[in-house]
Amino acid sequence: MVSDTRRNRKNGSTRITFLPEGKPLDIKSGSTILDATRKMGIDIQAPCGDLGLCGRCKIILGEGKNLAEPPTKTEKKNFSTKELNDGYRLACQCKVSEQGLLSVTVPPESRISQQRIVIQGIMPQFQVSPIIKDTIIELKKKQESKSDSETLLEALSENGFTDVSIDIDAIRRLPDVIREGNWNINATLWNNKEVLSLQPKDKAGQTLGFAVDIGTTKVAGYLVDLKNGKLLAAVSLPNPQISFGEDLISRIAYWTESEEKGINLQKIVIGCVNKLIEDSCKRFDVSQNEVYDITVVGNTAMHHIFFGISPKYVGQSPFPVAVKNSFNVKAKDIGLKANPATYVHALPPIAGFVGSDTVAGILATEIYKQEKISMLIDIGTNAEIVIGNKDKLTCCSAPAGPAFEGAKIKHGMRASSGAIETVWINPKNLDTGFKTIDESKPRGICGSGIIDSIAQLFKTDVIDNIGRFNNKLSNPRIRNQEGDAEFVIAWQNETSINKDITITRRDIQEILLAKAAVYTGTHILLERLNLTPNDIENPYVSGAFGTYIDLANSLTIGMFPEIPTNRIKFTGNTAGSGGRLALLSEKLRSKADKIAKNTDHIELASDPSFEKEFTNALWIPHRETKRFPTVMKMLGKH
Amino acid sequence: MVSDTRRNRKNGSTRITFLPEGKPLDIKSGSTILDATRKMGIDIQAPCGDLGLCGRCKIILGEGKNLAEPPTKTEKKNFSTKELNDGYRLACQCKVSEQGLLSVTVPPESRISQQRIVIQGIMPQFQVSPIIKDTIIELKKKQESKSDSETLLEALSENGFTDVSIDIDAIRRLPDVIREGNWNINATLWNNKEVLSLQPKDKAGQTLGFAVDIGTTKVAGYLVDLKNGKLLAAVSLPNPQISFGEDLISRIAYWTESEEKGINLQKIVIGCVNKLIEDSCKRFDVSQNEVYDITVVGNTAMHHIFFGISPKYVGQSPFPVAVKNSFNVKAKDIGLKANPATYVHALPPIAGFVGSDTVAGILATEIYKQEKISMLIDIGTNAEIVIGNKDKLTCCSAPAGPAFEGAKIKHGMRASSGAIETVWINPKNLDTGFKTIDESKPRGICGSGIIDSIAQLFKTDVIDNIGRFNNKLSNPRIRNQEGDAEFVIAWQNETSINKDITITRRDIQEILLAKAAVYTGTHILLERLNLTPNDIENPYVSGAFGTYIDLANSLTIGMFPEIPTNRIKFTGNTAGSGGRLALLSEKLRSKADKIAKNTDHIELASDPSFEKEFTNALWIPHRETKRFPTVMKMLGKH
Repeated sequence: MVSDTRRNRKNGSTRITFLPEGKPLDIKSGSTILDATRKMGIDIQAPCGDLGLCGRCKIILGEGKNLAEPPTKTEKKNFSTKELNDGYRLACQCKVSEQGLLSVTVPPESRISQQRIVIQGIMPQFQVSPIIKDTIIELKKKQESKSDSETLLEALSENGFTDVSIDIDAIRRLPDVIREGNWNINATLWNNKEVLSLQPKDKAGQTLGFAVDIGTTKVAGYLVDLKNGKLLAAVSLPNPQISFGEDLISRIAYWTESEEKGINLQKIVIGCVNKLIEDSCKRFDVSQNEVYDITVVGNTAMHHIFFGISPKYVGQSPFPVAVKNSFNVKAKDIGLKANPATYVHALPPIAGFVGSDTVAGILATEIYKQEKISMLIDIGTNAEIVIGNKDKLTCCSAPAGPAFEGAKIKHGMRASSGAIETVWINPKNLDTGFKTIDESKPRGICGSGIIDSIAQLFKTDVIDNIGRFNNKLSNPRIRNQEGDAEFVIAWQNETSINKDITITRRDIQEILLAKAAVYTGTHILLERLNLTPNDIENPYVSGAFGTYIDLANSLTIGMFPEIPTNRIKFTGNTAGSGGRLALLSEKLRSKADKIAKNTDHIELASDPSFEKEFTNALWIPHRETKRFPTVMKMLGKH
Repeated sequence: MVSDTRRNRKNGSTRITFLPEGKPLDIKSGSTILDATRKMGIDIQAPCGDLGLCGRCKIILGEGKNLAEPPTKTEKKNFSTKELNDGYRLACQCKVSEQGLLSVTVPPESRISQQRIVIQGIMPQFQVSPIIKDTIIELKKKQESKSDSETLLEALSENGFTDVSIDIDAIRRLPDVIREGNWNINATLWNNKEVLSLQPKDKAGQTLGFAVDIGTTKVAGYLVDLKNGKLLAAVSLPNPQISFGEDLISRIAYWTESEEKGINLQKIVIGCVNKLIEDSCKRFDVSQNEVYDITVVGNTAMHHIFFGISPKYVGQSPFPVAVKNSFNVKAKDIGLKANPATYVHALPPIAGFVGSDTVAGILATEIYKQEKISMLIDIGTNAEIVIGNKDKLTCCSAPAGPAFEGAKIKHGMRASSGAIETVWINPKNLDTGFKTIDESKPRGICGSGIIDSIAQLFKTDVIDNIGRFNNKLSNPRIRNQEGDAEFVIAWQNETSINKDITITRRDIQEILLAKAAVYTGTHILLERLNLTPNDIENPYVSGAFGTYIDLANSLTIGMFPEIPTNRIKFTGNTAGSGGRLALLSEKLRSKADKIAKNTDHIELASDPSFEKEFTNALWIPHRETKRFPTVMKMLGKH
């Protein structure tokens, strides 16, 4: 192998093998390792712009490390002598000077961190009884005139499985499996109706399932053992459709341009899920062929696009859904790589803007079972809100927009490494402290940090109850820039972007529009159900954004009605949990169908009070301050 | 378009566009058109070895014909002045001398003739009522909270179609189709169970079906209109698996070597069927997307390989079949190109060596309905024989081997252009006359010609009743060559291969082995059923070989028991007819299942009398001459 590699190497170049990828690349002498990682598409951190300042692009040279130039001053500052001897270097500084073979490890801490996402959510108690079942079948050998499939079906029937069909892919290997297994075989059955796969009894492998949660910004996947319900791996990737539009509406518009473009949107998300399946199977060292069931949840537009269904009309009033019931299609028919006979089960959506991710959330929180009134809220580009109990659930979707995710905000960013996520302002001198995700130097500010900022700015009277800056205050942090008032959260020298990080008047307006939508949705839903905020005995907040917001600050800006905050439970990614439950329990899978069918949906925009409510909710915390007695009392503003 | 072509043409070359293919190719000046056809993969006849002798490679120059060199002497001999003016040339002679654009038509008579095959078979009277139905559905527009699929399913239910599912590919376009069709749509339903496709009411296209008959040597396809039962096109191609083995056993051996090789066998036959679908759709100017149903018949090994099912054990005693019932798989799941939602229906086989082609034959001849005793015989590498009536049918398969198809015969060839198909020998002087297919100069001799020859050689006492040449006769046609006795059918100067075409002692042995197998099968079947040859009131001979054999000569050599020849009916390719019937009638489709289930199969090799019967049947017409009283009487040998 090594000699082969040597032979094929380009003349005058060094072949670098990146670990743990194991991918080789030929580079010319004089190139830096950072150049090489970029050519290879290895995402490595280099926020300082290759200047050797941030020390983030740490790599470890292995075999052939003598081919590199000696460490620079900058590198000597960054590493101890022992570390340098061990091969630690900075990719931006380390140049290759001689020809040969060099192995380079890119450690996890040097890789670009994925968006901080909450992959796991709460799971209720339940009995593992999936739709996929393995059964050992002893076949009768001496039946010359019978076909192999007849012999199998008869044996299945004797084992209580009647009216069973056999997938063509299982039939394909049937003659060999029967004889390899000496007439003792393991059959993997779907829904007691179809044989998906057959193995010689002693060679039966794992029986795995994969739950997929297609979010607008991220795609999460969960590899589970269908025999014991164990979660083997939870993985996620950004939704690659982002390059075709940040939000749903722009992706639907892209689809609408041509069918070809639409199919492209489908293909790239399918590719992303295939990568998740592949990665998690590799991690657990199993074959993708052992994945026998897949469930998919997501908002309705994502659901449609995933299955290649035209989402064109989902984005137009009255937002008609193409298919509302759950359905099963063969994974291979949409290009998913699992066992060739595997079905994909699409959990049912409720409405154009309340998808199967919400149904999954209801399943995971079990609010459909409870006597007491619950509320489930998942805040993203849209906030889905469900209120009710075992007798009736009602839901709506509030168009919050992407501001909470950092879009349309001057220094806004997603909740990933370097994002200011917590802010505190000293009411005396407006000195501002902050905390970033991963405690690194700030690159920007994410949703929870912006909410904190606005709440603190309001408390400290820097802004008024409609978000205007107080002209009378004089403080270096308050200033006008490019025609807009702003407040400096982090000074240039504190940041990694060499600029002040600020919150502007416009940023505040964007956030107020978003919070007003969420508040209005929750309020109208309560009104319709004749409930007060205090009636909500079990408020659940799910999703990544919800998990990291400061409840007191959110309430201060009036993001939702004054539900007693001490009751609130954070549930994490319940969409993923619900998908796993549907994988692991046949009963809960059909329960999801009932939930989708029986949950009422109200269309916020068509509610007669919507406009007035929305306008009043743009105030901090609300134009009708009596709706927020606790907040007003706390602020001393009642 | 033309200017584009001009722009992209290689410098210094002529771009030839071959018609009717419409494929362009750039060739250098000085090349012949024959070189170009070969590069393009256009099969053109040139048996004389490019010498201008046979005149078979006729082409017609069109636009740009001045770019070719003037006609050669040879060409002037072959064509009249008018023909030359019209552009007629010989591809092997005609060179391109100048650069530019030239169109060349390759007429059908110049193309390599396909094997002469009998594509069509008899069809009984029946009512067209296919499993595919088109229905116009008027949807209710104002149902905002309903999903499009719910709206459709409700409307279908009101039209009497309950418990219907919708194929994912139909769902994909559902939102668009509903609105394009202004809520009036045409639904294509499969088996009243599944919506395969939807079109706006005014844009509904054709509703077509395609029946496939997979033979060991040829693949035939039939494009039919599912609305009126009309046959639109009947097409065929050689089975491309031939390059992996002439007979079933060698293909099964190839499959057994590795799974990969097996899948390759599947892929190439699927590719062949795709070509047939494509060609017949083009011929009729319809889209492959309008093909909504496909039926497949074939012998059991071909059936298994077609669906990717391991045929390994079909070739080993006791010849177990993987799947005997009929089944449906989505065409896309085996790579067939039709409408994406189309099902392929595999008709059921009866046993390892009696396939669904026999079931189709029973369906087409309606022997399963008749009071009188019928016999259906289809002679190929295996001869399938069915005897019985409406109460009971019994079948067997006799291993005739490939001799009837010209294999293992010195000058043997398939029944295609240039094959001697009929032979007559003057008993006085052994002068021999013959007729070839297409009346061209002979290249070899095919099955029917060999049977004629043997019968005549026996009648004229050139050979005895075990096929030995008569030493006492002296005639230039009887000679020894390469240690084997032989008889000259055509002299060198009469043939196109510049060699004598002969029948050897070994050829005769091969044919006697083949005919003995067919006789023995038929005889044992009759014995088992307690019938005499005379009890067969409706003898049917199907298949290409059967259609062209001379009955009297076949009976003379004892190919089957002495059934009164005047009763025999030739039915053509009943396998194809049966496949079409299953496409066009739901009832006949389920009838095929019943036929397969209720037809008894006997294993010839395990019959105690088989060996003795087979040995005695090697004689001409039979060792027990009393079994052939009519033949013996005719020969004056009783």
